[in-house]
Amino acid sequence: MNFDEIRYEAYKANMALKSNGLVIATFGNASAADHNRRVFAIKPSGVPYEELSPENMVIVDFDGKVIEGELRPSSDTLTHAVLYTEWEGIGGVVHTHSTYATAWAQSQKDVPILGTTHADHLVVDIPCAPVMSDEMIAGDYERMTGYQITQSLAERNLDPKDVEMILVSNHAPFTWGATVSKAVYNSIICEEISKMAFITRQINPDAQKLKEGLINKHYERKHGPNSYYGQD
Amino acid sequence: MNFDEIRYEAYKANMALKSNGLVIATFGNASAADHNRRVFAIKPSGVPYEELSPENMVIVDFDGKVIEGELRPSSDTLTHAVLYTEWEGIGGVVHTHSTYATAWAQSQKDVPILGTTHADHLVVDIPCAPVMSDEMIAGDYERMTGYQITQSLAERNLDPKDVEMILVSNHAPFTWGATVSKAVYNSIICEEISKMAFITRQINPDAQKLKEGLINKHYERKHGPNSYYGQD
Amino acid sequence: MNFDEIRYEAYKANMALKSNGLVIATFGNASAADHNRRVFAIKPSGVPYEELSPENMVIVDFDGKVIEGELRPSSDTLTHAVLYTEWEGIGGVVHTHSTYATAWAQSQKDVPILGTTHADHLVVDIPCAPVMSDEMIAGDYERMTGYQITQSLAERNLDPKDVEMILVSNHAPFTWGATVSKAVYNSIICEEISKMAFITRQINPDAQKLKEGLINKHYERKHGPNSYYGQD
Amino acid sequence: MNFDEIRYEAYKANMALKSNGLVIATFGNASAADHNRRVFAIKPSGVPYEELSPENMVIVDFDGKVIEGELRPSSDTLTHAVLYTEWEGIGGVVHTHSTYATAWAQSQKDVPILGTTHADHLVVDIPCAPVMSDEMIAGDYERMTGYQITQSLAERNLDPKDVEMILVSNHAPFTWGATVSKAVYNSIICEEISKMAFITRQINPDAQKLKEGLINKHYERKHGPNSYYGQD
Repeated sequence: MNFDEIRYEAYKANMALKSNGLVIATFGNASAADHNRRVFAIKPSGVPYEELSPENMVIVDFDGKVIEGELRPSSDTLTHAVLYTEWEGIGGVVHTHSTYATAWAQSQKDVPILGTTHADHLVVDIPCAPVMSDEMIAGDYERMTGYQITQSLAERNLDPKDVEMILVSNHAPFTWGATVSKAVYNSIICEEISKMAFITRQINPDAQKLKEGLINKHYERKHGPNSYYGQD
Repeated sequence: MNFDEIRYEAYKANMALKSNGLVIATFGNASAADHNRRVFAIKPSGVPYEELSPENMVIVDFDGKVIEGELRPSSDTLTHAVLYTEWEGIGGVVHTHSTYATAWAQSQKDVPILGTTHADHLVVDIPCAPVMSDEMIAGDYERMTGYQITQSLAERNLDPKDVEMILVSNHAPFTWGATVSKAVYNSIICEEISKMAFITRQINPDAQKLKEGLINKHYERKHGPNSYYGQD
Repeated sequence: MNFDEIRYEAYKANMALKSNGLVIATFGNASAADHNRRVFAIKPSGVPYEELSPENMVIVDFDGKVIEGELRPSSDTLTHAVLYTEWEGIGGVVHTHSTYATAWAQSQKDVPILGTTHADHLVVDIPCAPVMSDEMIAGDYERMTGYQITQSLAERNLDPKDVEMILVSNHAPFTWGATVSKAVYNSIICEEISKMAFITRQINPDAQKLKEGLINKHYERKHGPNSYYGQD
Repeated sequence: MNFDEIRYEAYKANMALKSNGLVIATFGNASAADHNRRVFAIKPSGVPYEELSPENMVIVDFDGKVIEGELRPSSDTLTHAVLYTEWEGIGGVVHTHSTYATAWAQSQKDVPILGTTHADHLVVDIPCAPVMSDEMIAGDYERMTGYQITQSLAERNLDPKDVEMILVSNHAPFTWGATVSKAVYNSIICEEISKMAFITRQINPDAQKLKEGLINKHYERKHGPNSYYGQD
């Protein structure tokens, strides 16, 4: 019984963060989970992207304990662990400090749904979770960041299968998906939507949100029983 | 009788969208038409750019029915079909969600004609078509998007041979031209003009539109009987 | 007697505009002059950068008449011709529509001298020449653009050896220098200074201009009898 | 006894400024010090990055006197010399005119600490040293720039081991570190934090600084006795 598959998935995903311009230096981390075995493969902490390989991905269980690997896992490992524990259908998690999404997080504002580019991916504003309380920060910080994410979604009655991205106030975006490759895709989209929303509001501070009919139409094109986008 | 030529033209055009940074992920689509046979070749839906080939372009007739091809055509196919049906001289159509042009579309504002870069290509603001009515959205949405474009031009008394680009409110830009390669060129120009207009209005919110004399002069340099730009 | 040297210089300069991201499509043109023979080599009109070669540069005299070359010279040729005629020490001229410099030109505003990056190159704001009169536009437009540039500098008592760049209102930047390679360098600097000034004024609309002492100090480091920058 | 090691370190660092997009033309310079021998290797003045080699780095002592090398050292050499003299633990210094950090310097404003990306690296705003007095500018300018930096840090009671970056008003950023490679890293971070802060304040002019608890938590993750980021 080995972990080669999730190691390779996690490796590919971390490298894609770099090649898509979502991370600089050693920022960011991606993980790929195996829910049956309740483990995930994640980037080692502080290692430059050029030195990553499938072999140096770290295998961690859903409590955050290292199962296999020589290196220390990402310092954000416990945040990933919480998302996998709380949400059954999630196969991958990505965290970046991509420029525009992070700026919205620093602004403590949801990214408003202003166009169909946004609606093709989610039908609500990209939520910005509130600043964490001093108690959450002082304690088990990374684990609490995970709960801040799951609770923020729950409070807004959002399903993590419908909304696959969130900003954490004063921090940065987290994304997820059925696979880690989908989670990487969501990070790319989150950054692009954030950039477009920034420019839109600079051009027109009063730009209105997308109207209901258009939101639903675009979302249904890509999702649900009558979807007609893509090849399946 | 085969479709190799328009397939190859459409393929090259779609790849150019990617290499010119106008699309991310699977966003965007380009098509090349043969008006004699009333068909066009268009990008398959949801297929990554790296997997495109001349062979997997889909041949569709002007009613939007697939004539040849294994894959499902772009979900925007019916919008292309309407433009080809309504406008005789159009050989190519391109749709992107390029960042700055999309931000203007989300702002629901025409891109004002502020300089000669703009006037070298069109002598009016880049039109932003109004938000579509709930009836148009709920019904045959993509076909209606095509009519929204052709009607918006008609209402402003603009000829699609003079104005080869438009923004659809809350959506994104569409461009066209005598050839699909000209339509791609227009997408590049539309994005650059949109970016320049954004920066200009940030520097000087009261920046005035280009005066009539300069508009006409620059346009005539490139178009019409006394043009003296280029080699023919 | 041949023109190989200026042809090659002009070719290299035009290619450098492309590789430095200052031009898209067929925008922009660079020329290299030989003042003894009163001729210059310039980019042919409307030819894509990938198709340029030293051989297809066009040789034109200082009145704008083609001396040698199969292709039509740049539509901006007469502007270059005026600068060479009016200013003896100028060996190269460059015209681009680079994004940020063009946005300032569209704003009809000088680029304010806000830092030492600017002062290392010129000790005054980058001048923005006024919009041309209807008479100048209607007549010999490109030649008049040249005179608009030389007159604007003269009216401000600026020497083209000290100030090697200008914006033409609603149009775009022109730069020059002792060699065309210096003119290309000035185009790169003009764009970067324009971008920095835009961001500075967005951060702080009241950002003050650089004080006299700092302006002079930085300029003297690179220019004049006591310069101590570079290797000669 | 030779200087090959610091020459190579300095060379690599200067090339990294270019490949990370922090410098254009001949802007910027990096140096690597040997505190035992009280010398440092620095970029030659005004030489294009393509022509740099370990061999043409210039060896200078802590008074700024050239010890070995054919070329004139960077015009900013004396600023580096002061930092090495005043601060014992510093192994490298970097100076760039990177776009966003320079814009903040031109704005004469500290870069506010708005998020954890910033707090991961320093727990205070990036300081912007005041404009230098006319006396400092007129005299030994580059040496005085060094003292402006060390005094500004001292006046704010900041330790150069905790705060490894500063902006000099109307000029640009300087960074340093235990090694020159760390100083380059700090230049990359300084530019990215500056860009994020710019966008944040454009989105929300009232965006609040990061609260104390979060500042400390993120900084302790990477620094100090209980750090748990990276592999050592």
